[in-house]
Amino acid sequence: MFYSDGKLQFPVVVETPDPLFARALQQAIGGIEGEIRVCMQYFFQAMGARGNPKFKDLLLNTATEELGHIEMLATAVALNLEGAPVGIKDDIAKDPIASAVLGGLNLKNILSSGMSAMPVDSDGVPFDMSHIYASGNIAADMTANVMAESTGRVLAVRLYHLTTDPGMKDMLQFLIARDTMHQNQWKAALEELGGDAGVFPIPNSHPQAEEKQEYSYAYFSHMLDAAPPEGRWTKGQSIDGKGEFSVVNSEPLGEKAVLGPARPNTGAQAEQL
Amino acid sequence: MFYSDGKLQFPVVVETPDPLFARALQQAIGGIEGEIRVCMQYFFQAMGARGNPKFKDLLLNTATEELGHIEMLATAVALNLEGAPVGIKDDIAKDPIASAVLGGLNLKNILSSGMSAMPVDSDGVPFDMSHIYASGNIAADMTANVMAESTGRVLAVRLYHLTTDPGMKDMLQFLIARDTMHQNQWKAALEELGGDAGVFPIPNSHPQAEEKQEYSYAYFSHMLDAAPPEGRWTKGQSIDGKGEFSVVNSEPLGEKAVLGPARPNTGAQAEQL
Amino acid sequence: MFYSDGKLQFPVVVETPDPLFARALQQAIGGIEGEIRVCMQYFFQAMGARGNPKFKDLLLNTATEELGHIEMLATAVALNLEGAPVGIKDDIAKDPIASAVLGGLNLKNILSSGMSAMPVDSDGVPFDMSHIYASGNIAADMTANVMAESTGRVLAVRLYHLTTDPGMKDMLQFLIARDTMHQNQWKAALEELGGDAGVFPIPNSHPQAEEKQEYSYAYFSHMLDAAPPEGRWTKGQSIDGKGEFSVVNSEPLGEKAVLGPARPNTGAQAEQL
Amino acid sequence: MFYSDGKLQFPVVVETPDPLFARALQQAIGGIEGEIRVCMQYFFQAMGARGNPKFKDLLLNTATEELGHIEMLATAVALNLEGAPVGIKDDIAKDPIASAVLGGLNLKNILSSGMSAMPVDSDGVPFDMSHIYASGNIAADMTANVMAESTGRVLAVRLYHLTTDPGMKDMLQFLIARDTMHQNQWKAALEELGGDAGVFPIPNSHPQAEEKQEYSYAYFSHMLDAAPPEGRWTKGQSIDGKGEFSVVNSEPLGEKAVLGPARPNTGAQAEQL
Amino acid sequence: MFYSDGKLQFPVVVETPDPLFARALQQAIGGIEGEIRVCMQYFFQAMGARGNPKFKDLLLNTATEELGHIEMLATAVALNLEGAPVGIKDDIAKDPIASAVLGGLNLKNILSSGMSAMPVDSDGVPFDMSHIYASGNIAADMTANVMAESTGRVLAVRLYHLTTDPGMKDMLQFLIARDTMHQNQWKAALEELGGDAGVFPIPNSHPQAEEKQEYSYAYFSHMLDAAPPEGRWTKGQSIDGKGEFSVVNSEPLGEKAVLGPARPNTGAQAEQL
Amino acid sequence: MFYSDGKLQFPVVVETPDPLFARALQQAIGGIEGEIRVCMQYFFQAMGARGNPKFKDLLLNTATEELGHIEMLATAVALNLEGAPVGIKDDIAKDPIASAVLGGLNLKNILSSGMSAMPVDSDGVPFDMSHIYASGNIAADMTANVMAESTGRVLAVRLYHLTTDPGMKDMLQFLIARDTMHQNQWKAALEELGGDAGVFPIPNSHPQAEEKQEYSYAYFSHMLDAAPPEGRWTKGQSIDGKGEFSVVNSEPLGEKAVLGPARPNTGAQAEQL
Repeated sequence: MFYSDGKLQFPVVVETPDPLFARALQQAIGGIEGEIRVCMQYFFQAMGARGNPKFKDLLLNTATEELGHIEMLATAVALNLEGAPVGIKDDIAKDPIASAVLGGLNLKNILSSGMSAMPVDSDGVPFDMSHIYASGNIAADMTANVMAESTGRVLAVRLYHLTTDPGMKDMLQFLIARDTMHQNQWKAALEELGGDAGVFPIPNSHPQAEEKQEYSYAYFSHMLDAAPPEGRWTKGQSIDGKGEFSVVNSEPLGEKAVLGPARPNTGAQAEQL
Repeated sequence: MFYSDGKLQFPVVVETPDPLFARALQQAIGGIEGEIRVCMQYFFQAMGARGNPKFKDLLLNTATEELGHIEMLATAVALNLEGAPVGIKDDIAKDPIASAVLGGLNLKNILSSGMSAMPVDSDGVPFDMSHIYASGNIAADMTANVMAESTGRVLAVRLYHLTTDPGMKDMLQFLIARDTMHQNQWKAALEELGGDAGVFPIPNSHPQAEEKQEYSYAYFSHMLDAAPPEGRWTKGQSIDGKGEFSVVNSEPLGEKAVLGPARPNTGAQAEQL
Repeated sequence: MFYSDGKLQFPVVVETPDPLFARALQQAIGGIEGEIRVCMQYFFQAMGARGNPKFKDLLLNTATEELGHIEMLATAVALNLEGAPVGIKDDIAKDPIASAVLGGLNLKNILSSGMSAMPVDSDGVPFDMSHIYASGNIAADMTANVMAESTGRVLAVRLYHLTTDPGMKDMLQFLIARDTMHQNQWKAALEELGGDAGVFPIPNSHPQAEEKQEYSYAYFSHMLDAAPPEGRWTKGQSIDGKGEFSVVNSEPLGEKAVLGPARPNTGAQAEQL
Repeated sequence: MFYSDGKLQFPVVVETPDPLFARALQQAIGGIEGEIRVCMQYFFQAMGARGNPKFKDLLLNTATEELGHIEMLATAVALNLEGAPVGIKDDIAKDPIASAVLGGLNLKNILSSGMSAMPVDSDGVPFDMSHIYASGNIAADMTANVMAESTGRVLAVRLYHLTTDPGMKDMLQFLIARDTMHQNQWKAALEELGGDAGVFPIPNSHPQAEEKQEYSYAYFSHMLDAAPPEGRWTKGQSIDGKGEFSVVNSEPLGEKAVLGPARPNTGAQAEQL
Repeated sequence: MFYSDGKLQFPVVVETPDPLFARALQQAIGGIEGEIRVCMQYFFQAMGARGNPKFKDLLLNTATEELGHIEMLATAVALNLEGAPVGIKDDIAKDPIASAVLGGLNLKNILSSGMSAMPVDSDGVPFDMSHIYASGNIAADMTANVMAESTGRVLAVRLYHLTTDPGMKDMLQFLIARDTMHQNQWKAALEELGGDAGVFPIPNSHPQAEEKQEYSYAYFSHMLDAAPPEGRWTKGQSIDGKGEFSVVNSEPLGEKAVLGPARPNTGAQAEQL
Repeated sequence: MFYSDGKLQFPVVVETPDPLFARALQQAIGGIEGEIRVCMQYFFQAMGARGNPKFKDLLLNTATEELGHIEMLATAVALNLEGAPVGIKDDIAKDPIASAVLGGLNLKNILSSGMSAMPVDSDGVPFDMSHIYASGNIAADMTANVMAESTGRVLAVRLYHLTTDPGMKDMLQFLIARDTMHQNQWKAALEELGGDAGVFPIPNSHPQAEEKQEYSYAYFSHMLDAAPPEGRWTKGQSIDGKGEFSVVNSEPLGEKAVLGPARPNTGAQAEQL
């Protein structure tokens, strides 16, 4: 069960409203790298967490924090939209600059939400909950979270360079710091789960005897007339410590697939029967 | 540019067609953990790769392999669908078992594709390319790939337990092995990029002086009346080696957000002006 | 069955084509507050209407009218797009204003539809028929319709303030009037179904003895350190006339949820078993 | 900012796991009538609330409660999935009943989430945040909320009739009661905003002199050879108290729309130029 | 503007309700081959039709007919759903056959629409209006329509083989006949537009001198170690009468693409700069 | 199985980066007329091809070519994005032209992909794989392909007119030529399958005796007070050579549809029972 005190986790101040920046901030709310994603991902991972309960607690706690980040960003979007032209008294019809600003907005931020934040990305595309990765495998979930916080911090840094507003820079410095923590936190969880050799290959509950092990550590090259790019992945011990990397020129092990003729009454052309 | 020899990377044999298993296999084609996802993700990451060209080569090469995995799985789906009831000569109307089989299918695999594979998941939901994570940051991309192969191998293992068909088990043993390799491969790429201390926090090009560092390694607790779950994330050196984990009871640093009244001509109620 | 006379319900005249306004008008076609939504919603509600047939007639009739509104708006979009730059003879490459106009468009209105309307919103997102609310409960459907016409009229008013074109203002004055009627019409249908006390709680066919009535009229407060916002919802008779509002500090009635360990062969990590 | 105590708002007990009921419950999580929808809708409405702050408080408070409802339902889904067949030891391959159960599931609840809840509906379709209606008009928002709770309670009642499990019936009795409250609460908010005559037509800030008032209360009949369905909507004072209902046979006020020829270089056929 | 007489274009009779067939019929309503698609496609093509007005009339007329097809199919779905189990009095909990039937449904047809049709496909996925192809090029539109009616008739034939109900077979015989007409009709429109030599390549307004004509009729072979599949496409005059087919082994005309290093402040890793 | 040589099929050169043109090019990657669509459509059609294997070879070969087209276009997008403003050193905050350029972009091309191509359309909407039409009927598939290449070439021509960059014009001249070939190629495949009289009506395996033949070649007129648009479709032999076109005034053959009352326990209002 959840509670709120109605306050912001960190102050949200906008000195000079910038409607175009409001549009950019929408990516941090409803983009695939945004805060709805992490909030809901940690929440649903918590809902499916089995095994040591501390991971469920960790997930639920961070989901709860992230909800407050959506709140901060939604406030920031509304404050930045204050500068948007919304009617003829704003002379947009005659003013090319105002037209450009209007044209540069997600129009839905005006037409659909009345100058407020929406759960959409910076191009007005609604967030789709299929992006909530909650696999039921605690280690796979942690890799998903490292990834989410990595792309999240990349996004926050890009936003940081698109604004000169001191309040917005402050808010982003806070959010970037939290992303630093969360990258480290999920990596720490993986370490607690056994580190690279203990965790990988995910799922570690599947006996490797049940895979075709001759292909488990082989780099298959599919490039014609070119050597494979040499790197840590072409030789030496594998990261999970369970094999040796090698390089193989990929060749088909199977034949051409041939489906039989179509069955009657399946809507095929007569020639296919 | 691309080429094909029209052959399968690994043999695809189905002894006893199982239409319900065909439905399950669809998740490995068009699910978020499936092969379209990895193929297109590595492809688009290659398209945006900057810096050392060997990462682009690595990505393009693996994308090319994955295309062959979609081919294998699509063949497997079609072969398993051979057992599906498609008309009255199959007596589905009178046979509750046949009805159950029909009811258990993605009907689109019959109605829409004529007993063939589709780019949809196991519940018939089409794959949506927003799942292609290609961030322009090579390390964030690698974390996305570790995650993709982790959830991918989890899925393959689940499929492995849903079939007793020897041909299908063989094919899945091959695919599970390739997922083992690819998990290791992307981890190896991260090691080559500097390992945990060199890579994190992602992006490493952003000076940490430009974040609120007092919050960069603090575990904020949002749980009422409960101690935080202790773990690697609550104390000791951070994983990136740049700070010390600590625990903080989260308290609001900001105040309640108050937007001003609505502007005229923005479609608000009169009471909001 | 349906018929057309090929004429517009109301004249659609554009004095000065404005491609950016064409983009805004798209929201009234393919936005969630738009005309495809109401047309198809009333249509599908009619298809599922049971009980007194006059509601089915009412729904089908209004669906038929709304189809004509899509027609008007699609015409308006095409006429406004006449002003869009489409090629080098329009000198967009060298003209920042033309670039801004082009940048401000849904590019698909040019690239995909050849300067015509599309079933997309003002940011180019296609309309998704999951927005067709047709519940099989006639009263719930009517509340959905009040809501659709309320957000629809809000949108029309916002559009009205974004144009100075007399033809467009005329057309919108007509559509705003129709939204006034339709808001009243669906409210009238609710009155005919029994008014607040007869209709609510929806569905009224479910005996309230089968709900936990001690929580049926209680305002649960989840705010820490803050009194609940007093209003009509905190005390007095409930709107449905079947209870008294009260205020309760929300406390958990349940315990922490604990799922068991993961089952074998479900792709979990070994630590979760 | 938000907090949690990690406990359930109401006990969630499942006596006999029923995987098919787990699938049905998914509709209450990720369906358009489900709890993610109300939670996020109230949250984003709060984010855009302007005017009297008590509406923002009301919205934020209820959003916070609804988050706990997702938590309850997600727990219920996981507990019901305990009965699902997941592997050959469950003999699904040979057992038509087990096959039917497996065929009746959202397979993603097994393949993708490992026997846990997902943010998808009962057919496995992910929730799409375009369903978050937050218009910036407080009265339109309240009509959206009445609708959401109406369809929500209809859904909960349907679920109630699909289970015989006492724990599930209990939980649903609680949720049905909360839907009763929330229907009443949002209706109460509309009453506080002025009731039907004060609130409608929404938005009430737009002067009706700026609409074509001759069409504002007219029922347009589009049915050939049939009288309009008589009702509260065909005569008498309008619900908003600002007009009289009348009936009009709808006739086109406009002419046939004719777009000009296609412009050169717009990809039309030569015949269209 | 549109009108209705409230009657069905063709009788819809269901002798024995079959909920699983209701699910299959949903594909003909909300599937990509279904009636919403053709209705809305012809409607929006009409909205963007330029040039000879008879094509606009043809499109609008057929759109109007198709609306009546949705009406027929939606009625058929509701009538077939009459047989669905909806509660404990239906003993689904104890009856494996009833469970199988319930499991075989789109649950949303019960939970979300109350035993009525929805604008979704046979797996419950909502129709998405991006499938409305209306290009602004009249010949491209006609090819889209030939395709829509081709896949539509394939679907109708498949449905025909999934039912033994005489009423349903009758209705489908009517719809299949209409698809025959519409395939012919759109082909006839292409003939009127000039036939293959006049129409192709689409758009015919673009001078072929402005394309790389050496590649305009060449079959590029991308298969390794395999001759191209010989056919009408490898030699002889091209279908548009403007060239001769030839076969070419595809070889790269370009070099490896190399993007420069990442720009500063774009969120890349330091190694990419 | 697939291979690559890492080279571009045709040179991709950008003399003057134009970020707005990058946005337009996105339509050719992730738009419904774009290259992902044709690539994946031909691929999945190949996966389901039954009957004469040369069609499978033809499809797979062309899919392989199209993958190289995505590669070319993605390279072109990245090169054009080089001109985009990404930070304060670009002075976008103070420069209205830079703001207009930024506003005219898909912001995700900066925020989400770091100045690279994405699998989205020109308005930032992700490609959705439901657009992959692969019906299992080889002739229906060929009509889908003619349509795809027709809308594809229309798009390429529109893009051609939006740029003055010589490198981009060159690349588009190549792609337009390939679309010419592919239109002809799929038309040639239809000819090989029997031409209009052999192929239509699709599917040709369904005996026309099983359709209501009196309606198979009748133009139904739904227009009130207007003669049908005369054309090849109103009289003369049908295109498939199996009937004669005629004109019929459409009249309802069925009655008004009446569903029975709602069943108990289905969540209807009491009035509907």
